[in-house]
Amino acid sequence: MSIQQFKKVGVFRCGNIASSPLFELLLDELADRQDLKTRTVTTGAKMAVEDVEEALPKIFEFDPDLIVFISPNPSIPGPAKVREKLSGCGVPSVAISDAPGKRVKADLEKQGLGYIIVTGDPLIGARREFLDPIEMAIFNSNIIKVLAITGVYRMVHQEIDKLIYAIKNGLSPVLPRLIIDVNCIRDNSDFKNPYARAKAMAAYELAEKIAEVNLQACFVEKESDKYIPLVASAHEIAQTAARLAEEAREIEKCGDTLKRKPHSKDGKIKVKTSLMVPPALDEEFYRKPA
Amino acid sequence: MSIQQFKKVGVFRCGNIASSPLFELLLDELADRQDLKTRTVTTGAKMAVEDVEEALPKIFEFDPDLIVFISPNPSIPGPAKVREKLSGCGVPSVAISDAPGKRVKADLEKQGLGYIIVTGDPLIGARREFLDPIEMAIFNSNIIKVLAITGVYRMVHQEIDKLIYAIKNGLSPVLPRLIIDVNCIRDNSDFKNPYARAKAMAAYELAEKIAEVNLQACFVEKESDKYIPLVASAHEIAQTAARLAEEAREIEKCGDTLKRKPHSKDGKIKVKTSLMVPPALDEEFYRKPA
Amino acid sequence: MSIQQFKKVGVFRCGNIASSPLFELLLDELADRQDLKTRTVTTGAKMAVEDVEEALPKIFEFDPDLIVFISPNPSIPGPAKVREKLSGCGVPSVAISDAPGKRVKADLEKQGLGYIIVTGDPLIGARREFLDPIEMAIFNSNIIKVLAITGVYRMVHQEIDKLIYAIKNGLSPVLPRLIIDVNCIRDNSDFKNPYARAKAMAAYELAEKIAEVNLQACFVEKESDKYIPLVASAHEIAQTAARLAEEAREIEKCGDTLKRKPHSKDGKIKVKTSLMVPPALDEEFYRKPA
Amino acid sequence: MSIQQFKKVGVFRCGNIASSPLFELLLDELADRQDLKTRTVTTGAKMAVEDVEEALPKIFEFDPDLIVFISPNPSIPGPAKVREKLSGCGVPSVAISDAPGKRVKADLEKQGLGYIIVTGDPLIGARREFLDPIEMAIFNSNIIKVLAITGVYRMVHQEIDKLIYAIKNGLSPVLPRLIIDVNCIRDNSDFKNPYARAKAMAAYELAEKIAEVNLQACFVEKESDKYIPLVASAHEIAQTAARLAEEAREIEKCGDTLKRKPHSKDGKIKVKTSLMVPPALDEEFYRKPA
Amino acid sequence: MSIQQFKKVGVFRCGNIASSPLFELLLDELADRQDLKTRTVTTGAKMAVEDVEEALPKIFEFDPDLIVFISPNPSIPGPAKVREKLSGCGVPSVAISDAPGKRVKADLEKQGLGYIIVTGDPLIGARREFLDPIEMAIFNSNIIKVLAITGVYRMVHQEIDKLIYAIKNGLSPVLPRLIIDVNCIRDNSDFKNPYARAKAMAAYELAEKIAEVNLQACFVEKESDKYIPLVASAHEIAQTAARLAEEAREIEKCGDTLKRKPHSKDGKIKVKTSLMVPPALDEEFYRKPA
Amino acid sequence: MSIQQFKKVGVFRCGNIASSPLFELLLDELADRQDLKTRTVTTGAKMAVEDVEEALPKIFEFDPDLIVFISPNPSIPGPAKVREKLSGCGVPSVAISDAPGKRVKADLEKQGLGYIIVTGDPLIGARREFLDPIEMAIFNSNIIKVLAITGVYRMVHQEIDKLIYAIKNGLSPVLPRLIIDVNCIRDNSDFKNPYARAKAMAAYELAEKIAEVNLQACFVEKESDKYIPLVASAHEIAQTAARLAEEAREIEKCGDTLKRKPHSKDGKIKVKTSLMVPPALDEEFYRKPA
Repeated sequence: MSIQQFKKVGVFRCGNIASSPLFELLLDELADRQDLKTRTVTTGAKMAVEDVEEALPKIFEFDPDLIVFISPNPSIPGPAKVREKLSGCGVPSVAISDAPGKRVKADLEKQGLGYIIVTGDPLIGARREFLDPIEMAIFNSNIIKVLAITGVYRMVHQEIDKLIYAIKNGLSPVLPRLIIDVNCIRDNSDFKNPYARAKAMAAYELAEKIAEVNLQACFVEKESDKYIPLVASAHEIAQTAARLAEEAREIEKCGDTLKRKPHSKDGKIKVKTSLMVPPALDEEFYRKPA
Repeated sequence: MSIQQFKKVGVFRCGNIASSPLFELLLDELADRQDLKTRTVTTGAKMAVEDVEEALPKIFEFDPDLIVFISPNPSIPGPAKVREKLSGCGVPSVAISDAPGKRVKADLEKQGLGYIIVTGDPLIGARREFLDPIEMAIFNSNIIKVLAITGVYRMVHQEIDKLIYAIKNGLSPVLPRLIIDVNCIRDNSDFKNPYARAKAMAAYELAEKIAEVNLQACFVEKESDKYIPLVASAHEIAQTAARLAEEAREIEKCGDTLKRKPHSKDGKIKVKTSLMVPPALDEEFYRKPA
Repeated sequence: MSIQQFKKVGVFRCGNIASSPLFELLLDELADRQDLKTRTVTTGAKMAVEDVEEALPKIFEFDPDLIVFISPNPSIPGPAKVREKLSGCGVPSVAISDAPGKRVKADLEKQGLGYIIVTGDPLIGARREFLDPIEMAIFNSNIIKVLAITGVYRMVHQEIDKLIYAIKNGLSPVLPRLIIDVNCIRDNSDFKNPYARAKAMAAYELAEKIAEVNLQACFVEKESDKYIPLVASAHEIAQTAARLAEEAREIEKCGDTLKRKPHSKDGKIKVKTSLMVPPALDEEFYRKPA
Repeated sequence: MSIQQFKKVGVFRCGNIASSPLFELLLDELADRQDLKTRTVTTGAKMAVEDVEEALPKIFEFDPDLIVFISPNPSIPGPAKVREKLSGCGVPSVAISDAPGKRVKADLEKQGLGYIIVTGDPLIGARREFLDPIEMAIFNSNIIKVLAITGVYRMVHQEIDKLIYAIKNGLSPVLPRLIIDVNCIRDNSDFKNPYARAKAMAAYELAEKIAEVNLQACFVEKESDKYIPLVASAHEIAQTAARLAEEAREIEKCGDTLKRKPHSKDGKIKVKTSLMVPPALDEEFYRKPA
Repeated sequence: MSIQQFKKVGVFRCGNIASSPLFELLLDELADRQDLKTRTVTTGAKMAVEDVEEALPKIFEFDPDLIVFISPNPSIPGPAKVREKLSGCGVPSVAISDAPGKRVKADLEKQGLGYIIVTGDPLIGARREFLDPIEMAIFNSNIIKVLAITGVYRMVHQEIDKLIYAIKNGLSPVLPRLIIDVNCIRDNSDFKNPYARAKAMAAYELAEKIAEVNLQACFVEKESDKYIPLVASAHEIAQTAARLAEEAREIEKCGDTLKRKPHSKDGKIKVKTSLMVPPALDEEFYRKPA
Repeated sequence: MSIQQFKKVGVFRCGNIASSPLFELLLDELADRQDLKTRTVTTGAKMAVEDVEEALPKIFEFDPDLIVFISPNPSIPGPAKVREKLSGCGVPSVAISDAPGKRVKADLEKQGLGYIIVTGDPLIGARREFLDPIEMAIFNSNIIKVLAITGVYRMVHQEIDKLIYAIKNGLSPVLPRLIIDVNCIRDNSDFKNPYARAKAMAAYELAEKIAEVNLQACFVEKESDKYIPLVASAHEIAQTAARLAEEAREIEKCGDTLKRKPHSKDGKIKVKTSLMVPPALDEEFYRKPA
């Protein structure tokens, strides 16, 4: 494959969810993929319309073959502006979002955007008495672990991998319309041991519960005596969910049944199970998108 | 503070280290800071000269007041190109890097760049038989937790906060020349309980060990029978280090002595200890940079 | 106090919730209380109208001073029959129930019954492919631990203790109208350490989540491939919730701040904190009900 | 099977042991058994002769086909009175008890009663400085978990299931004469993995040790400085025993070898191992009692 | 103190108990004590009369000021021979032993020997199907941890320290007659937190239970199907006991209340609590032996 | 084999490393070997030339067939004296040592001594503010567990077993020249599960790290504020390493794949895997040394 065959994925982030910080690395975890480049622009924690208007255009300047847009709650003005701009831009685009994304599902479809909605990517406990940079980072660490182990990150990168595969092969990409809830985890995750899967599902259910508690704590309760214990409890759940997910993975290690799917240099997904055995091309994966 | 008083931090990333994915969120964890915006451009996993040349210019287009550049090993061509471009750019710039950064310390100083070198931000076990997107994400989750809890992220955001403070107040920013090794953790972390601190230091020492093992596994050993067990053991250490760091934090919870330092809306750092008590302005912090 | 001054609590159970199996022991944990006797009649797992009609009359034959009725979902026919019979019986009566009890709150009030509704006493994963006697017992063990540690059992026995106190002293008992949700835990539990309380609240929130998952698994999903993983995940949450509750209690042990409230022989509640110090009369408790 | 074919098990409890609170639920864990009803009468924590005399007669009024009597130490007056009354009552009766029951083994046999003596169902740490309702409930939670996982509850319900089977089929029930000690656990529990079994046995041995420590603490030591640490240590052992039992079960989950034996609607015991596979009739079980 | 004032402790071991392998290191943990030397002779695992007769004389050749003899079960021929030889030897001698030592307590006293009997230093699970060198070492590791943390090693070295102190000061040494059972742990250990102490006591009680199980497994059961599970369960208890002891110590770390008693260069015991504070002379210790 | 055929291993220790305290027990873990006796002389914590000169001669008096000398750092005067004396003594001799032993590898070879250098047997945190007898014992307990589980003790006893086998069979013993580093663990340990092996390797890597930290703390840092946290962190790593090793072993238990190699009475090594199956002669082992 010659250098001009690199496909380019433009990633635009505004605000943060745990599906976001490692996203582009999921596509090229070994940093040696020769069919793909990613270019990301982000507005950090900010997600106002003016942030979007300043930053989003840079993405188009990179001339991407595919755009992925990640933000919390895509119904509020900033992310809505992004959706609007992506809608007519001529580049296949996918929005990745948290549970409130379900509310704009119909809009996303009308706007011609693909979407992956992760119901277990919860609102953080954003109360100044509780959340400082360290607590924020720990929360993200915990949720990242949950999303990685339960299979969310797998589904996310596979959806994007399918699009890239289509684009590379001159096929028309079928944009994902995917809601990753616990049933989706149940039906699609890679666990061999049924108890490992049950623990992973439990971890995901916990992540969903966090959102519910933090919503109450951040938007309903007004007194710090009421909301501090709530956000603190939500972050305890996050820690517990991460441990539970880890437990699930440890069970698979016990049986040497942990499935790994590294990208090859040419971007194809390989697959392996026994740790000491080399990965092979994931035939099953390439049978499906065909 | 009126809107035009927003200071802008431009963040440029190429390649990934665990100090990187959440960096800009550390500066504005509550997403309500009214004195600061961040704009980030990244080349994902790639860090070649051509990636840098395509992406770095966008940062300048954002007209930043301060630039932070984060990458692994700043001595190799891509990051070296970034350093070169930042050197004469007229915007105060800081490089954040992992242990190999120590080798270019003198260069960084000559180039007029500030630096923060995190010796406990280790090389990942990048072997295709082992590292897939999920394993990569879990590793980052673990190291993020270690860097957050041990105090690395605290030191990082405080260094940047000091620069922003200086810029906002028309003072000449003193660029950091900081190597965060275990002694630095010992002398600067926020632990009240000495055993919590010892556990945090142990977690950090483990993180340093990971780098050593992965270096051997990724660059010295040639046969998969030799290097797979090594990268697998390095990632086990990462998991263990994260747990140990968590243990440290749990001890502080036991005594309700966990220190929190949220940013206020105007960007000032506040500080608090007892969970149920509101944060106050961190006088100590603002006495130091004066 | 002479022997005839024993007050008698009649307990009637049909079906099981985790608030049920140890209920009467909560009132006389040292088995030496000289002001109180309990007599219980239960229909085991069964809760049909015919079971109620056969067994409930025995309670009245014991001539109780107070009746406590415990069952899941008090809106279905069997428990509804119990409520109806208790309504006009002339003995002060209290219903203890799980979350579905909220639906009949108004009815309970109209019927003149007191109530304690425990939102974190979840539906069990009653699917034959999963639930056998052992799994059932383990689930109850886990939820019992959660209810005990988070403070639910404390609130329950204190409410009944207040009624007995009133009856013994010829006062008119004020029947409880209590919904024990996570806010109630937050505001009423005995934790000294705020992180212990947060962990306990998290455990309780997990217990609420179990109910939600099991509801889906037991009443919505029809295929075993769908519902087995769900009930299994719900019971994993139960195990996790029990551990989290235990963690909360361990924190209080660390500070020797665990509050204990044993009953004295004359039925009064005593209170103590430091383990090696004897309990004293709980003045605060007796100030409140007066 | 028509409705009149329901067999009725009368359960009488006085005082509490951990074999007691969930007993009748073990027989009908899915609450849908159509061949069996249970009716329970209990005197709560109290176990004096007068309590027995008031409450026991109600059991006979239910006209049971089988009576199960559960109490601690069946040699003391109250339980002795129960044994005496059951002895000539004409209904097959079984006593379930803790280790002191071994002392009256010969009496039980002479009285024509079956018995199941659970040596690992230990005396609680009943000292007012330590035991409050919460501590009592937690202790029971822990021992319930031990008895469930180690196989005690399995043996108990199977013994009763055999009796019911005989009664239903017009056979003469052979009353159990069973002492469940650690050797019994070793020889009869359902573990597939030998280390899981060893951990379960260890948990049971710990439960036996608790009894020994609490006996010393409750009946020998007179000063609170002496007995408080002892009861506290005994309850720490209970917590540890529960965790160890849980570890045993987790090992079986790792291999998907956990055996489950749910009751079918017609009361027959089914059996299954792989979680995702449906249970089948337990041929082995029905071969044995024939 | 000049160099010739070194006192010499002769240590003789035959067979092994967990009080043995680190004994002499307990007296000089920093290897810089200038008032004491130890010389040890051991017969390894063997403890026959002929082993004793060959090896014991070497101890006398070292011309010791004090002799410590450590072995399991001092009633059997080999150790009995040692006792006999030490009895008339003119050097103050102390026997350290496990629980069976209680049987020869009177003999020891008659023989003029001091003794320290450690009831929680249990028989190992010496069955060839189970015990290999690794299992043996792990068992010792676990029991060493239990004996160290619960306070047994503290009591042991302090008893010997007192004797050395007396000998150095020309006082007549009062030989110890000490049975270290759980009551002794309760009354003499250094824990500040009462729950830490309770956990330590629990760990010690577990260690006692191990002995009981292994006795059954090694000397009563004849079939491997019977004894393998028993020794395996005993070693699981050992692992659990070590964890429980560790938990006790972690609690003290939480409060920074861990007591440390290092030897000074001149052999005096120092004492300290807060980790960051230097140790001071242990006045209390030297008040007692005076 | 008649009694005179006992071979005698003389063991000389000065100073302590974790490879030392249980060494001779590794050779005869069941204490019933009929081909081997061990005689040990040790100087305790002391390792000066004068200690060696007084104690070492006793070993020769035992007339051993093989001598094993164990000490830390064999390059310093005391151990150097031992090496010198063993060099010309005519008895095959092997030195076992920690990492600094690598420095005298060439000397050892020149002196005709075999050697086993254990790079993961770390320097203890010998600072008086931290290390007391209890802390010393706990550290040894942890490292013993690491060395036992990771396979170090296995390699050590097998090397000695081979020598004894040769001596017994009149063959010329080939003295070992073995450096046990993590690669050696990787290539020679008995783990069946690759993740168990990875965890064991991680534990060993941690043990190596401890040495590095303690070296800094004991020999470089001069102020207690600097070195106390370092030694404390090193001992936290030791505890963590022990847990990680234990985790590795637990994984093998999960699969019933734990390999055991007990000595038979005639000294031959047997081998077994499934716990309930008897050990068989380890053919593989005896094929190798032939």
